[in-house]
Amino acid sequence: MPSAIPSAAYRGDDALATLLTEAGTGRSPADVRALLAGVLAAPEGEEPAAWTVLVGENLPPALTEQLQALKAQLAAEAPTANPGPAQRLDDLRAALKRRDLDGFVVPRGDEHQGEYVPPRAQRLGWLTGFTGSAGNAVVTARQAAIFVDGRYTLQVRSEVPADLYEYRHLIEDPLADWIVAALPEGGRFGFDPWLHTIGWVEKTRAALERAGILLVACEDNPLDSVWQGQPPAPLTPVVPQDEAFAGESSADKRARLADELGQKGIAAAVLTQPDSIAWLLNIRGADVPCTPLPLSFAILSADASVELFLDPRKLAPQTRAHLGNRVRVRPVEEFGAALDAVARGSARVLADPGCTSAWIVDRLHLAGARVERDGDPCALPKACKNAAELAGTRAAHVRDGAALVRFLHWFSEEAPTGTLTELAVVERLLACRRENERFRGVSFDTIAGAGPNGAIVHYRVTAETDRRLEPGSLFLLDSGAQYLDGTTDVTRTLAVGEPDPAMAAEMRDRFTRVLKGHIALSTARFPRGTTGSQLDVLARLPLWQAGLDYDHGTGHGVGSFLSVHEGPQRVSKVGNTVALQPGMILSNEPGYYKTGAYGIRIENLIVVQPVEELSGELAGAERPMLGFEPLTLVPIDRGLIERALLSDAEAAWVDAYHAMVRESLSPLLDDAARRWLEQATASL
Amino acid sequence: MPSAIPSAAYRGDDALATLLTEAGTGRSPADVRALLAGVLAAPEGEEPAAWTVLVGENLPPALTEQLQALKAQLAAEAPTANPGPAQRLDDLRAALKRRDLDGFVVPRGDEHQGEYVPPRAQRLGWLTGFTGSAGNAVVTARQAAIFVDGRYTLQVRSEVPADLYEYRHLIEDPLADWIVAALPEGGRFGFDPWLHTIGWVEKTRAALERAGILLVACEDNPLDSVWQGQPPAPLTPVVPQDEAFAGESSADKRARLADELGQKGIAAAVLTQPDSIAWLLNIRGADVPCTPLPLSFAILSADASVELFLDPRKLAPQTRAHLGNRVRVRPVEEFGAALDAVARGSARVLADPGCTSAWIVDRLHLAGARVERDGDPCALPKACKNAAELAGTRAAHVRDGAALVRFLHWFSEEAPTGTLTELAVVERLLACRRENERFRGVSFDTIAGAGPNGAIVHYRVTAETDRRLEPGSLFLLDSGAQYLDGTTDVTRTLAVGEPDPAMAAEMRDRFTRVLKGHIALSTARFPRGTTGSQLDVLARLPLWQAGLDYDHGTGHGVGSFLSVHEGPQRVSKVGNTVALQPGMILSNEPGYYKTGAYGIRIENLIVVQPVEELSGELAGAERPMLGFEPLTLVPIDRGLIERALLSDAEAAWVDAYHAMVRESLSPLLDDAARRWLEQATASL
Repeated sequence: MPSAIPSAAYRGDDALATLLTEAGTGRSPADVRALLAGVLAAPEGEEPAAWTVLVGENLPPALTEQLQALKAQLAAEAPTANPGPAQRLDDLRAALKRRDLDGFVVPRGDEHQGEYVPPRAQRLGWLTGFTGSAGNAVVTARQAAIFVDGRYTLQVRSEVPADLYEYRHLIEDPLADWIVAALPEGGRFGFDPWLHTIGWVEKTRAALERAGILLVACEDNPLDSVWQGQPPAPLTPVVPQDEAFAGESSADKRARLADELGQKGIAAAVLTQPDSIAWLLNIRGADVPCTPLPLSFAILSADASVELFLDPRKLAPQTRAHLGNRVRVRPVEEFGAALDAVARGSARVLADPGCTSAWIVDRLHLAGARVERDGDPCALPKACKNAAELAGTRAAHVRDGAALVRFLHWFSEEAPTGTLTELAVVERLLACRRENERFRGVSFDTIAGAGPNGAIVHYRVTAETDRRLEPGSLFLLDSGAQYLDGTTDVTRTLAVGEPDPAMAAEMRDRFTRVLKGHIALSTARFPRGTTGSQLDVLARLPLWQAGLDYDHGTGHGVGSFLSVHEGPQRVSKVGNTVALQPGMILSNEPGYYKTGAYGIRIENLIVVQPVEELSGELAGAERPMLGFEPLTLVPIDRGLIERALLSDAEAAWVDAYHAMVRESLSPLLDDAARRWLEQATASL
Repeated sequence: MPSAIPSAAYRGDDALATLLTEAGTGRSPADVRALLAGVLAAPEGEEPAAWTVLVGENLPPALTEQLQALKAQLAAEAPTANPGPAQRLDDLRAALKRRDLDGFVVPRGDEHQGEYVPPRAQRLGWLTGFTGSAGNAVVTARQAAIFVDGRYTLQVRSEVPADLYEYRHLIEDPLADWIVAALPEGGRFGFDPWLHTIGWVEKTRAALERAGILLVACEDNPLDSVWQGQPPAPLTPVVPQDEAFAGESSADKRARLADELGQKGIAAAVLTQPDSIAWLLNIRGADVPCTPLPLSFAILSADASVELFLDPRKLAPQTRAHLGNRVRVRPVEEFGAALDAVARGSARVLADPGCTSAWIVDRLHLAGARVERDGDPCALPKACKNAAELAGTRAAHVRDGAALVRFLHWFSEEAPTGTLTELAVVERLLACRRENERFRGVSFDTIAGAGPNGAIVHYRVTAETDRRLEPGSLFLLDSGAQYLDGTTDVTRTLAVGEPDPAMAAEMRDRFTRVLKGHIALSTARFPRGTTGSQLDVLARLPLWQAGLDYDHGTGHGVGSFLSVHEGPQRVSKVGNTVALQPGMILSNEPGYYKTGAYGIRIENLIVVQPVEELSGELAGAERPMLGFEPLTLVPIDRGLIERALLSDAEAAWVDAYHAMVRESLSPLLDDAARRWLEQATASL
């Protein structure tokens, strides 16, 4: 449902105080203003009034109205004025000087190393203006540089002033080399140990020490000390995830994992990944965009109890009951003391070196723990969806598919007129999905690339880049949604009217090769023990045979009403030793990109299943074999398929897939959409 | 040519002394007897008199005859009588006690960690009787165990007395666990630091130290002290490899590698792999079976000079000139002092942790070197064959193919009679190859598996296992040869007469699936940067789709008149980060094995080439692409192909391959063989 605009004006703190008292909330207007500071530092989400549960349950409408009115008033207040980028850099340099530091690194990530970073942690953006999703700035007394990867080489030049920062390549130009060149022997280079993994710190420390430079962990972040009006941490309600969707109680999950820890002689595991904690405790939140999770830390002990570190104000009353007495909620400020306690007696404590902050590992070491470096123990069980999660994701995909078909029906009528723009399409698609009552927002920013914009793999449309969909061109649409029962992610490449005759043969050839790769992966059977890396080539070979390829992975893991990108499995050229297991959801998204012309990608979500569960028996099979069940139910543009390039088996796959789409979605469609779907899914 | 049996009797040392003096060799009969001790510890090879060059060049026939006669007499002498296995174990235990050791490990490998181990280093075999190619024995005062892998679980039981040794699994039962269980805290466990890599030692030391057990490097090997009549090191002539075959002078190779070392600031690289040294110096030898290499160590300095450590008696006079004055030949006894010298001044010295003995790395550390652990610098350049090596291997494959066709013609006539045995086939095949003047022996022991023996992946026929080829069955034949200009390795699966009607459909289905996998890998195009691990699935998918698989790698690297198994590239389920590069030779050998019934494998050698070099242009290719050129030229049994399972493109590949085989080999065949080849390569 679209967010309602508050209709009433805020009537003042006295009036609010009366309403709060009358409702028996035990809260003052000052409490509410403090709450709202955090609420406004989180994305608004699909339910803008959801936060009011933090004031109390079942509030009278008059109070809810005033709470929303106050929120609107605070949101409209001008943000704290900050100086320009040159002054910010000067201020940071002064802060470094006060700390006797010769340099400092400002990464893009926060203390959870996640994909989405709350406003409070957008230090790189505040300092430099850079808004991309990966990068580092390095600042010394006289020099500064920003390191970004190939996706952002153009963007960084438009966002970050060249007179303040050198531009460097994140992968090809090692950060440590730059620091060694910039600092004298004996120099002191600072970093915030909350914002870097222990792996990064050890590698960087070794490189700097070879050059006689000391890597110094800062007790506080020097940038924070000069950031006026730095937002607070986001504050949104933590709510239980219904066990009907989760499929396993948190107590059972905890017991299962604790048992594994015990068997390995490990006293406790430190969890720093908010989606792992959300999965383990069957809770969800709204602290960051696109992923329904509360930012938090946790310690899981071998006795199956958990300490959960987050702002206790986040807990809706029902959530306290849901967590039960084996989960102790503690303020984040107590995390360090809890690490000390768990380390006691040289305890063996598990931490994932790939995502755990150096601060945590250092603290454990100082407290005497034997730190066992191993993967996050939640990652694999979270990846292997249970029957309830799979039922939920299938149901979500049916509803998502119906929304997509309503959208595609509209698109098929509007696109040939040549009046649509990327932004208009994104809006319409969102509206189609919002009709679904379990919709909780997009699972990532929609990628809607018209013509040449489709060839920009990480394109995000803005008012400035918004492009008209020209008849004859291709349009790439990659989108997904969060539903209470599952997360979706689907890409379709659509002809805008009839393909341009001058390009049609090439476009159809490329589209069909991408489709052949998609089918090859989707239909693969493979023995248990096989990894996604082993299968990656199947999706690429039809392109390779023509001397073509694509420069991204073929598939990523997908959560269950959680992150649309999750591990540990993936399908990629890059080696990965995680065997595919039943219940793992993956994307299958080969593509082809012609710079300046068009982009093609065909993406379904698929789930690993034993072949016995899939249609098509394997008579005579000698080994336990796995395969994939498609989850996504959206027609593939038949007009772009070159039938002669498909084998009969591949054409039969398309027809069978389309028949499944038709049968699954038709009951949810009106007559007009159903008729459109019938022709869109007709046999090749 | 078959080896000639010496016709003359040995006439005594006095007569020999006269002949030696008359020929001006400067050698005494005692010298010759010492030489012969080493010669007899090496395989006889295709040229049994080749060793006489070590006495002198251009010897008079009468002297050569007496030298061969003395060799025959010494070879016929009864070997030193050794006690039985129980006594050997007791003797070893006594030796351990004298050294204050509570246990000791006897590995199968020697100080080069190679595939073939000379008689002197066959300690595991001497102690236990085990003749397999991988394993460890562990001995304590009261217990002993032998660790072997899945290939040898049956064999070890027949060779190693159960009352003396427990049987353990090499992979599933960690050696360190067994030692920890067998030894008390404070125990001292010994090992020979020449026989284990530094990687093995560090891993094992860490595991034992956790249990309070000390891992002790022995200064001499306790087993050697009780092995009466332990053979000397093998001694065979080191000869130059003709530059017409090598394609690059040793001086150029050394300059190229030394330049790379210098750029990395490395003073020297320690080389422990005899095939790397043979490649670098363009030398060959005959110290071990099947691989034409001299056992040696070397140090390559950043100034492009080399110190070569081997018995100087091995050098034929022409070889000294070939090596030149930038290669200093030193006895192996001086290796340690040379390591000390190269380590001086905290020099950075390269050593490959995967194959370098702990003794060497420890010595370098003690001498103050900064040991840089990285791959053998010869491995990659050796793997990428130059134009001369590729021309040589192509020529060798034409001659090898002609020998195979002569064999197959004979086989097609003899096999249906039901009289052939595996041994008879192996002999005939060897005879066919021996007709080739550049033949220098087999490149590995031929695998000739009739019926159920074909399902034993590592089967080697012996007089005891020799099996008749029954009409209606399948026969798997995997063989290869060493020629002066190249190394071959080919597997064909042959129907013995007409396939048994009861099994024919299944056999054809399996054979065709294996063939489809072989074709898929052979025809793959892939961008530069792709590894063999990424391509492995292509060879397996047609089997996987039917629930079948094979439990070995798909392809290994192959040397140029060197080892038939060489790295660093391979095609395997196991991850490998080495990108395939032009000139790399690989085997392509998918298979299928039905225990107790039959085995199928189809193997060609293939070489990586830029697509431009391959037939079939890639119009419109956007990236530099690579593909494979087949080297092996031997028909594939058409009678086992189920045409309906092949796509038209696959059938066309078979026809085109067979046309190439026919055109390449026909000029080398007589009329009858040519007629047979024509029908064997007719279109499907």
